[in-house]
Amino acid sequence: PDDWTDLDTRAVDTIRVLAADAVENCGSGHPGTAMSLAPTAYTLFQRVMRHDPADAEWPARDRFILSCGHSSLTLYIQLFLAGYGLEVEDLKQLRKWDSKTPGHPEYRHTTGVETTTGPLGQGLANAVGMAMAARRERGLLDPDAAPGESIFDHHVYVLASDGDIEEGVTSEASSIAGRQELGNLVVIYDDNKISIEDDTNIALSEDTAKRYESYGWHVQVVDGGEDVVALTEAIENAKAETTKPSFILLRTVIGYPAPNKMNTGAAHGAKLGTDEVAAVKKALDFDPEQTFQVDDEVLAHTRQAVDRGKTARAEWQAKFDEWAAANPERKALADRLSTRALPAGWADALPSWDADEKGMATRKASGAVLNAIGDALPELWGGSADLAESNNTIIKNAESFGPESSSTGMFKANPYGRNLHFGVREHAMGSILNGIALHGGTRPYGATFLIFSDYMRPAVRLAALMKAPVIYVWTHDSIGLGEDGPTHQPIEQLSTLRAIPGLNVVRPADANETAVAWKAVLEDIHAPSGLCLTRQNVPVLEGSKEKAPEGVARGGYVLADFGDTNDDHVVLIGTGSEVQLAVEAAKTLAQQGIAARVVSMPCVEWFDAQDQEYKDSVIPPSVKARVAVEAGIAQSWYRFVGDAGEIVGIEHFGASADFQTLYREFGITAEAVVDAAKRSVANTKA
Amino acid sequence: PDDWTDLDTRAVDTIRVLAADAVENCGSGHPGTAMSLAPTAYTLFQRVMRHDPADAEWPARDRFILSCGHSSLTLYIQLFLAGYGLEVEDLKQLRKWDSKTPGHPEYRHTTGVETTTGPLGQGLANAVGMAMAARRERGLLDPDAAPGESIFDHHVYVLASDGDIEEGVTSEASSIAGRQELGNLVVIYDDNKISIEDDTNIALSEDTAKRYESYGWHVQVVDGGEDVVALTEAIENAKAETTKPSFILLRTVIGYPAPNKMNTGAAHGAKLGTDEVAAVKKALDFDPEQTFQVDDEVLAHTRQAVDRGKTARAEWQAKFDEWAAANPERKALADRLSTRALPAGWADALPSWDADEKGMATRKASGAVLNAIGDALPELWGGSADLAESNNTIIKNAESFGPESSSTGMFKANPYGRNLHFGVREHAMGSILNGIALHGGTRPYGATFLIFSDYMRPAVRLAALMKAPVIYVWTHDSIGLGEDGPTHQPIEQLSTLRAIPGLNVVRPADANETAVAWKAVLEDIHAPSGLCLTRQNVPVLEGSKEKAPEGVARGGYVLADFGDTNDDHVVLIGTGSEVQLAVEAAKTLAQQGIAARVVSMPCVEWFDAQDQEYKDSVIPPSVKARVAVEAGIAQSWYRFVGDAGEIVGIEHFGASADFQTLYREFGITAEAVVDAAKRSVANTKA
Repeated sequence: PDDWTDLDTRAVDTIRVLAADAVENCGSGHPGTAMSLAPTAYTLFQRVMRHDPADAEWPARDRFILSCGHSSLTLYIQLFLAGYGLEVEDLKQLRKWDSKTPGHPEYRHTTGVETTTGPLGQGLANAVGMAMAARRERGLLDPDAAPGESIFDHHVYVLASDGDIEEGVTSEASSIAGRQELGNLVVIYDDNKISIEDDTNIALSEDTAKRYESYGWHVQVVDGGEDVVALTEAIENAKAETTKPSFILLRTVIGYPAPNKMNTGAAHGAKLGTDEVAAVKKALDFDPEQTFQVDDEVLAHTRQAVDRGKTARAEWQAKFDEWAAANPERKALADRLSTRALPAGWADALPSWDADEKGMATRKASGAVLNAIGDALPELWGGSADLAESNNTIIKNAESFGPESSSTGMFKANPYGRNLHFGVREHAMGSILNGIALHGGTRPYGATFLIFSDYMRPAVRLAALMKAPVIYVWTHDSIGLGEDGPTHQPIEQLSTLRAIPGLNVVRPADANETAVAWKAVLEDIHAPSGLCLTRQNVPVLEGSKEKAPEGVARGGYVLADFGDTNDDHVVLIGTGSEVQLAVEAAKTLAQQGIAARVVSMPCVEWFDAQDQEYKDSVIPPSVKARVAVEAGIAQSWYRFVGDAGEIVGIEHFGASADFQTLYREFGITAEAVVDAAKRSVANTKA
Repeated sequence: PDDWTDLDTRAVDTIRVLAADAVENCGSGHPGTAMSLAPTAYTLFQRVMRHDPADAEWPARDRFILSCGHSSLTLYIQLFLAGYGLEVEDLKQLRKWDSKTPGHPEYRHTTGVETTTGPLGQGLANAVGMAMAARRERGLLDPDAAPGESIFDHHVYVLASDGDIEEGVTSEASSIAGRQELGNLVVIYDDNKISIEDDTNIALSEDTAKRYESYGWHVQVVDGGEDVVALTEAIENAKAETTKPSFILLRTVIGYPAPNKMNTGAAHGAKLGTDEVAAVKKALDFDPEQTFQVDDEVLAHTRQAVDRGKTARAEWQAKFDEWAAANPERKALADRLSTRALPAGWADALPSWDADEKGMATRKASGAVLNAIGDALPELWGGSADLAESNNTIIKNAESFGPESSSTGMFKANPYGRNLHFGVREHAMGSILNGIALHGGTRPYGATFLIFSDYMRPAVRLAALMKAPVIYVWTHDSIGLGEDGPTHQPIEQLSTLRAIPGLNVVRPADANETAVAWKAVLEDIHAPSGLCLTRQNVPVLEGSKEKAPEGVARGGYVLADFGDTNDDHVVLIGTGSEVQLAVEAAKTLAQQGIAARVVSMPCVEWFDAQDQEYKDSVIPPSVKARVAVEAGIAQSWYRFVGDAGEIVGIEHFGASADFQTLYREFGITAEAVVDAAKRSVANTKA
């Protein structure tokens, strides 16, 4: 570019040298991509993006997503140069315990990191979510501004590698981005033709540019990662195209300019070695004897980003204040969203139900809840991976999110709509939900059958790792799904989701517990939560209307006690659709001389978080006769029932039949709970 | 086509009526696609495919994969018409308990079903594996035959829906299929523009034909599912194109010819209703009063498939016998592969190691095993999702599987090669492995880091459901992975994989256990197995050389006893890299007056399968002081340690640092095991 100086060139070369040195110093890491992407990353952070190093959470900032998270130095060095708080000392701590520069960028662990990346494909899909969130946010706060004229308009920039391009989640997300016409999204594909197994030709022969054209993206090819002029022009073109996401295929040479290792797999994931690092330094006119050499004038030059950020921020603030003055209600909403505070009285709209033997499916109760609170909570939006009617996730008085051209006979769409349609793309849904949650104050939910949580599991794990307050609506949560058979019936999923640290797995027993569960997950803004809901009707249980409001929030509670306190005691622990079996069994046991307590435990994680006194008040340590009942594997219940306990569960795959037959044939019945309780009482006496 | 008669038309219409009736009779199901795909499915089964209804396992049969498994009637009705053993009575049992016609097609549950489908995308990806397996099989048994001239040549036909097309696993697999130039693969995409959320336009705007062109496929568009002439011609073209997989985009009208519901979501996943079914029958000149009407002459016509099959089979058998006579060694191999029997003496080549404190990483031992047994087991082939060097999965004296044009500086490829390169596509890898295993006698393995088992989980679950003998090589199996940090460190994966019914999760403690583990998983031809291996070095343990051969196969065994039998006793149970900590702790405990037994438990599933006597001999019921140690969540260990037990594990995400620091900071140490043992002994006395 015309304003490119020698100092810019020196800065870019400094990046390359720092990357080589940092990996050499650590002994492991990924130098090659950080070297070859140096001009690109520098161009973005120093010349393209609107950002303020002094405030990494400025809502109107452009987002930078390093989808190829293994090249974390690409980001860390920019954060250092631009003045986000990292210094050379931090680069020396790369990949070390308790450093600000872990192996992969970790959300909010390091200031300026927008999302945790490393598992390939996730970053690009997160970015699609962020670009969607930016549009939704604009729609909520400034819908009338002309295109490009809103203070909320900004761009999302992504650096992606061949691994990102190969992962299926990216394909799903990219197809969605095309459908959504996300003009605010710019993906730069670092096409260096090298992966860990060396030349990508061994596994990759597709025409990726054409593939992105097929998704409806604006596609450009830039031949050479050193060609800053062409790259800058391509980015300008991308910004000018406001009705399509942009894909810039950038042909780079990994490890450039390492004389022996560039353009080979050896530059990807290991230190270059002393000699090669020295050769890089010589080639770039750096002192081979020095390490982490940053000329003062280079740093002074790049740290001007701080002043530019301050100026941009001030200009924006003036416009923001003008907007705020003219739009007091929207300003109030913006303030609320920025803290994720829920509005006063919002929960008054939550429905409740009287005890009722016929009852209703908890998925249906969930749909009623969503529609009851939808008006009070405009930040709540979401949809399904093509199962909206089954998941009961449509907010009925709202339009769908999408360009008007995506409207169908069933759904009217507008760019600021609220109901999301992911298609049969569960994994991208999960990653997009993460991107939405990370972007700002809106609260996204996404739905599919519980079994297909397996398809989105990597994204769920990352939500938990990032403490992103995403809500999953997972319906058809057991063999109660019925006729669709073993491929669609979750057996191990409840346990395997509980296994993810930091994920709330919530399985309400009835309609009342469902309403309270929604309240509780909305109030937890520091963790993702999954609501596991029934396909089939379940009774509204006696006592739940009164006890669920406190009980569900505590994870587990005493729903009812049956029998004579002088009798033998047993505690029956159930979740979801099996709580009714515990109740039925308890009544029978009471008649047969065993006092039975029914504990409904919709969320093990919340129960674990209670103090010991409360926990002991629910499951008394003195009562060793215990039964857990859940239509899934027993794995997560052993620690609750103990040595004398029994578990009524299913340790094999399901089958295709009506659900009543399956419950009977697989022995998930009140009779089985009664028998197990008697065995457990006997165990305590053995 | 010229030879198409009114009887063919009547047969096609019979399919439509049967589909509508079967769903109506069941009360739920998917009528629409089975109706609109009637001409296509009929054309394939009656006019295109080489198959023998009398022998659904004829190795040279063309494969038919219904990737849109929800349209199971599409397959069941063809199996009925062609004479595979299903009758009208079976169609009346659709989706009922213990029927041959479950909601989704289940592998080998119903004769003629090649793979279990339903979770979308899996079938198409399985088919890619089958097409690869067909080429590999030809390479092993008949490499010198001219193209199209081998008795082993056959085609794989797939019916796929928009859901299949949207799922990322399909994108991954389709890109691989393009790279592999699978000329024996024909995918027909049922582009009916309707999904569960009605018009697909709400979520799908990509140019799918162009997308498949970008993958390097041969692409054709057929405008109209009723146009059998055009479809037949397209299939002929597809077969003529032998160096590219073929994609036929077939524009259909879902539910055709249901007058009110066709071309709507209402025809997708619910019964049409009495009136609409009657209208269909009227439109097709069937008696609206009758159900399941199949004219005798129609059935006689379609059952000619049996005779055609017999003839084709006989012609083939003659050529096969000729080939067998000329190729006795290959014939012997073919026989062996067909039963999955391992050759006599194959295990003699397995390496073993003397006890050695320095030891080696179990992933490295695994690589040594693979290369030691590779020559003896030509059926064993596989590769990695772009981590070959890290996973140690290359068979060094073999070439890579791929067209010669896929060769690189590092890997020489040929179409019959052995080392697979999946790119960064774990999910497709899993599904392709399933396809390979289902196709025939070869044994596939696939590798990635253990953490990324999450990316392939739906495929792993299906392998377990189908009892497909796939082998996963999952390395970097704990925080021992080190610097790459929490995104790459498995914490919950060991427990969540154990949660899948029917999957062997094998975590060997050292090099000797690794060799025996390979032997055991190769010998188990009725289940998938995952080998969980260390990145870091672990000692070759004292006693493992002698005890592992029997012990590993039994899942858990006594590695060593330490201390005085008169002292208090404790059992220390460890897996993988933590067994060494148990050994070290046991020595310390013995010195401090607690007799400690070290149980190595590489495979919980195999241990569970032992008789109670053996299990009690390893973990004596009388010894209640027990500690489990594993660098992951405790979930799967509670049932082994019991109320008095303690578990040394990790209930939170990992971090980026060298592994020694992580083990120390997270408290996975011999000292922690010692302390836990003392607590457990104290618990038994409390």
